[in-house]
This record gives sequence, C-alpha cells and structure tokens, in this order.
Amino acid sequence: MRVGVIGGGQLARMMVPPAVALGIDIRVLAESADSSARIAATAVGDYRDAATVLDFATGIDVVTFDHEHVPQDVLARLEASGVAVRPGRDPLEAAQDKIRMRERLAALGVPIPDWAAVRSESDLAEFLAAHRGVAIVKTPRGGYDGKGVRVVRSAGDAADWLAEGDVLAEELVDFRRELAQLIARRPSGETAAWPLVETIQREGVCAEVLAPAPDAGDAAVEARAIAEAIAEGLGVTGVLAVELFQATDGRLLVNELAMRPHNSGHWTIEGAVTSQFEQHLRAVLDLPLGDPTPLAPVSVMVNVLGGPVAATMPDRYPEAFAAHPDVKFHSYGKASRPGRKVGHVTATGADLAEVRARARAAAGFFEA
Amino acid sequence: MRVGVIGGGQLARMMVPPAVALGIDIRVLAESADSSARIAATAVGDYRDAATVLDFATGIDVVTFDHEHVPQDVLARLEASGVAVRPGRDPLEAAQDKIRMRERLAALGVPIPDWAAVRSESDLAEFLAAHRGVAIVKTPRGGYDGKGVRVVRSAGDAADWLAEGDVLAEELVDFRRELAQLIARRPSGETAAWPLVETIQREGVCAEVLAPAPDAGDAAVEARAIAEAIAEGLGVTGVLAVELFQATDGRLLVNELAMRPHNSGHWTIEGAVTSQFEQHLRAVLDLPLGDPTPLAPVSVMVNVLGGPVAATMPDRYPEAFAAHPDVKFHSYGKASRPGRKVGHVTATGADLAEVRARARAAAGFFEA
Repeated sequence: MRVGVIGGGQLARMMVPPAVALGIDIRVLAESADSSARIAATAVGDYRDAATVLDFATGIDVVTFDHEHVPQDVLARLEASGVAVRPGRDPLEAAQDKIRMRERLAALGVPIPDWAAVRSESDLAEFLAAHRGVAIVKTPRGGYDGKGVRVVRSAGDAADWLAEGDVLAEELVDFRRELAQLIARRPSGETAAWPLVETIQREGVCAEVLAPAPDAGDAAVEARAIAEAIAEGLGVTGVLAVELFQATDGRLLVNELAMRPHNSGHWTIEGAVTSQFEQHLRAVLDLPLGDPTPLAPVSVMVNVLGGPVAATMPDRYPEAFAAHPDVKFHSYGKASRPGRKVGHVTATGADLAEVRARARAAAGFFEA
Repeated sequence: MRVGVIGGGQLARMMVPPAVALGIDIRVLAESADSSARIAATAVGDYRDAATVLDFATGIDVVTFDHEHVPQDVLARLEASGVAVRPGRDPLEAAQDKIRMRERLAALGVPIPDWAAVRSESDLAEFLAAHRGVAIVKTPRGGYDGKGVRVVRSAGDAADWLAEGDVLAEELVDFRRELAQLIARRPSGETAAWPLVETIQREGVCAEVLAPAPDAGDAAVEARAIAEAIAEGLGVTGVLAVELFQATDGRLLVNELAMRPHNSGHWTIEGAVTSQFEQHLRAVLDLPLGDPTPLAPVSVMVNVLGGPVAATMPDRYPEAFAAHPDVKFHSYGKASRPGRKVGHVTATGADLAEVRARARAAAGFFEA
C-alpha cells in the first residue's frame, strides 16, 4: 500500500508515524528539501505544476493532501490519470473556495451564518445595511490562520480585495465559543467521529484545544449530525474538520471546513484510540476505520508558536522534560519564525483545570 | 539533535515515530536498501566495517543500536572518534558475550542460574554430573530467538560447538514462567522502569507479552531491584531488557540481557505514557526520562510471524481492521518468511482474559 501526500508540512509529517506503524509506504511531494515532512519526502517540487504532480503519483495507490491548495486543473488531470485522489477534486473545491463552500453548505441545509457573494462595493453596502453595519469579509481563496479575513464596517474597507475579484461577506456572529467537529469518512461510506472539541484562538490562530468540549450538551449530537451531513453531502474521503461557532443564542453555525487532518485533532495522537493521522490513512485507503474513542476523560493540546528567539523546541527539552515527564511533546522540525506553528504539546488526565494548567505550563517552556 | 542507529531492523524502525514526534533527526545504517527502517536509512553498509561505521557517525551526536552485533574493535574506534556511543562498548560486551555476561552478573551479586564457562567435553561432563545430568549449553555469541541454545544430556551433545571455542553451560532451571523487566537509564544516572511483564515463548521465540505480569506480587519489586543493579552496575545507557526465569521455587534468575528496546516492551507503544522507543531516544540523548506509567490496567502484545504464504500484514487489513477497530496493528515492512517476526498487535483493556483473547484473535488474521 503506497500513499502519496502532496505538501510537506506538519500534517504530512504527522502522517509518518502511523504509516510506519501500519507498514504503509508513505511518500511526500514537498515544497523544499528541508520541509517538515522531509523524512518521507521522495520528491521536491511545485504542487501547482501538473507534470510534477503526475510524475510524483506514478506507482502510488492513493494521493492525499497536507493542504487544500492543489489547483482544480491539476486535480482533474490527476484523477484522469487513474490514481485515486482522496478527497477528490469535487469535494476539495468546497475547501478551496469559500464562496463555493457557502453555496454547497446552503444547498445541504447545514446551519451557516448569513452570507453573500459580493461583487462590488454596492453589494457590500447592501449586505452591511442588512446586518447592523458590520460584516466579516473573506477572500474566497488562500486564507488561513486569520489571513484573508477582515471585519468591515464600510463598503470601502474591502475595496482592495474587490478590485481583485468577488469576496464572501458573512454575518458577524456573536458567539460564545468556537468548536470543531472532526469526522473521517471512507469511500465506501463508513464514518467515525471524535468527540466535539472547543478551540481557543489567539489573533486568528488556534492556541488551545480542549477535548471534549466542556459542557457540550446537545451541541455534541448536533455537531456530529452536521459533520455527517457535510461528509456525506460533499462526498468527502479522509478526515473532515468542521469549524463551528456556538452563538450566544445557542445556535451552531459552520464557520470553515478543512478536508485533511486539522490542528483541532492533534490531541487524538495520544488522546484517542485512533489518531486523526492514522484514521486519515485508513480512510483514504478505504480500510475499515479505527475506534475514535478518547483514552482519557480530558485532553488539552496547546500549540507552540515560534518566537523572536531562534531556539528550537529540542533546545528546551532538558527543562521541559524534567518538569513534565507525562506531557507529550511534538516538534515539527521547522525553523522558528514569529507566530509560526512549530510544535504542540498534549496533556491528558481527569480534571480539565489541572490538565489545561499542565499543558500550558509545558508549552510555556518554549515561549521566547 | 541527531541520533544514528546502527542496524535497520524493526527496533530501529519503531524508533522513527517518536523521533519524528520529538523533532529528533534519526539516521540509520542499514544492512540493505529494503531494511525494515528504510524510511530513515541514510546509509547502507556493513556494521562490522569500521570505516563504514565511522563515516556513518559523521555529524551525528549519539550513536545507538538496533542489535548487539557491532564488534568491540569497531565500537572502540567509534568511541575514540569522539562520538557518544550509547550503550557504550563496555556494557555492550556483556550483551554480546554470554560468558562475559555471566561473569559480570556474578560479580554484581545478581541472582543467576548455576553456570560455568566450558572449554572441553570433560568440563561439560563435570557440569552435567553436578546438575542431575542435564544442562543448557549456549554459544557465547550470535544466538537469538532460540538459536545457539541447546539442552544437553551428554558431553558429546555440544562437541560441534566446543570445536569452535568455549561455551556457556547453565543449570536447566525448573521455571514456572518467564518474565521481563525493562528499565531505561540515562548517562546522568536517572532510571525509569516499566512494570514487570510475563513473556510467553513458542519454540524459543517470544509469542506473547502480558503487561503487567499477572499476580507478580513481590517479584515486581525484586525484578526492578535486579534491573536497577544491572543498569547501574554495568553502566548501561538506553533501554535495558532483563529476561528472567521465575523458578518453581519462587526464585527470580536472570536469563538474558538486551541493551536496546526489546520485544517484551512493544506493548509500551500504546500501553504506557512513554514507549520504550521514545524512552530509548531520551535516554541515549541524556534527556530527562518520560513517565513509564501504564495507560490501561492490562496490555497484551502478540507477535505476528511470517508463514508459508507470502501475504503481507496489510493484505489482511480489510478483515482484521473490521473485526478489531480498537486493536493496534504494527507491520515491520519486511518480506514474510516462515517464523520471521513481521509485526505485532497490541490490545489494551481492563480484563486480562478478554484483552488476551482479543489480541490473539486480531493476530490470528495474519496466520497463514
């Protein structure tokens, strides 16, 4: 069994351990020789170039992804070449283009914020007028970790983006917290969902994940139904992450989708019987899915971001390991740059406050 | 941090996942291009050749091992070159030569079977006469998985081996069961021990491991003290496996030593907070050791041996995964040959009988 991953970031890197365990041959098309997934990189090249991607896919059973950025025309040529592409070109479109995503979720009847595809400042003025003078505007493509997202209060605030093409306008949701529902689906239709988690963002970047989401109540059942409907409705294969707002009025609204392992699921490496990375491999290979049951009452994941100091995580291991022998440390082997995700830590246990304090303290050793 | 592993078998392979997680650069000197650890292999060559090994060690912080077979003169040259070798040449001698091992354990006062270094048939006849006419004879070097071990009842039974050199004669211990105590030690002296386990052999090869050993009682404390004494006394760094007999009269006697991760510790990958493979990396890098606490009341590991059919483990994953979504499967990426260890499965849970039945059933999918 040979899986090819396009993109050499930390998500591809974290697919390596389960591939090694299961005896699955994993190959990576990386952007650079020093990519995070370099141990499995068999090619370095541009994922936007069809010839490069087709060459990489030679002899591979299933192609999957570390990111959503492979262009539709490259995906079409890959599918036409006969290799299995999972998730496929069609579902991936909804993860690549936020306007298409809203159109398709609306068609599925999934709860989403009010939205409009906006072509002009007058369109945007109209949307603002209908939404108390404020909106979230997103570029349809290329946004991540808070990039390509802006709060606007006047139609002119998005003039630069509108000059480049259509944008998505969304209702500014008054939310209590953000949640994420991860689910895996294989081509034959089987799905497996991990518990709903709470995600805490700082400056648009995921900072912490609490698993399961505290006091989830009915939201857990509702989120799972939403994720099932999306996975099924869009024909997703592999891991699907559904980022959700829990509005102050209690509604769950879908914010974003990712069709790959996701930061909100890193806790599953130690916190669940089957991690999102193993499950993604099983799902794209159309193998029976593993048990997503949590292994501990509470898991907390805290991201490690690069700081102004160029120290790598391993430089701080002597102190961090001594203080926290039971915390699991992950370093992505990336050069440290301010704000860049360079690793994470996961703590597990019985009491949320204790586990969270422990995870934060462990991650604190890597702050500049 | 760069660790070099000499030997490309499944033990080196299973060091890869924790190295990837921790951001430790792992490099392997493998015997062949299709070695089990090929994903991390940066060199293919003969570990008995000093030039090959010294070349491999260039730019590496710590050299460690997948097996005990690197010759003493190569180890001496490696140490002289300034690279950290862990475990070092001196402790490794006791894992390489069973007569040296008995001499050194005897000097440490550790409980061992009666033994003698035997140079001739008359020596052996004398040993047999003193031990009810039966003895275990072992070649000092090169034995594993039941090879190089023989039950003898007459001095002539070991004539072929004696023609080649000295052999070790040991009392045939009347034992109730076999146990194994794993411990890790770092150069600064810190140690961490996993619980005592029971190992079940079939035809001289490890078949199953029950963790912790059922009804261990005082043996758990005693075994740990023995392992501590050996690790400290021999100056072992990394993981040390102490294979023990529990005699019918209750005595614990040291059977064999291995100074590396060991088959009796594979259960720790899913069954303990820190696996033996992560711990070995921490220990040889002189980093603070991780918590060896078990994650479940019971873990059972069952080895998968190659059969007459050339099917690989992944060929059987569709059925095995469907039947056992909560069992963890490990395939070593090796060609199947009768009796060869090609993988293992681990099940965890609360009830020994249930967990053992589940692990056996899961492993059963890979029997020819």
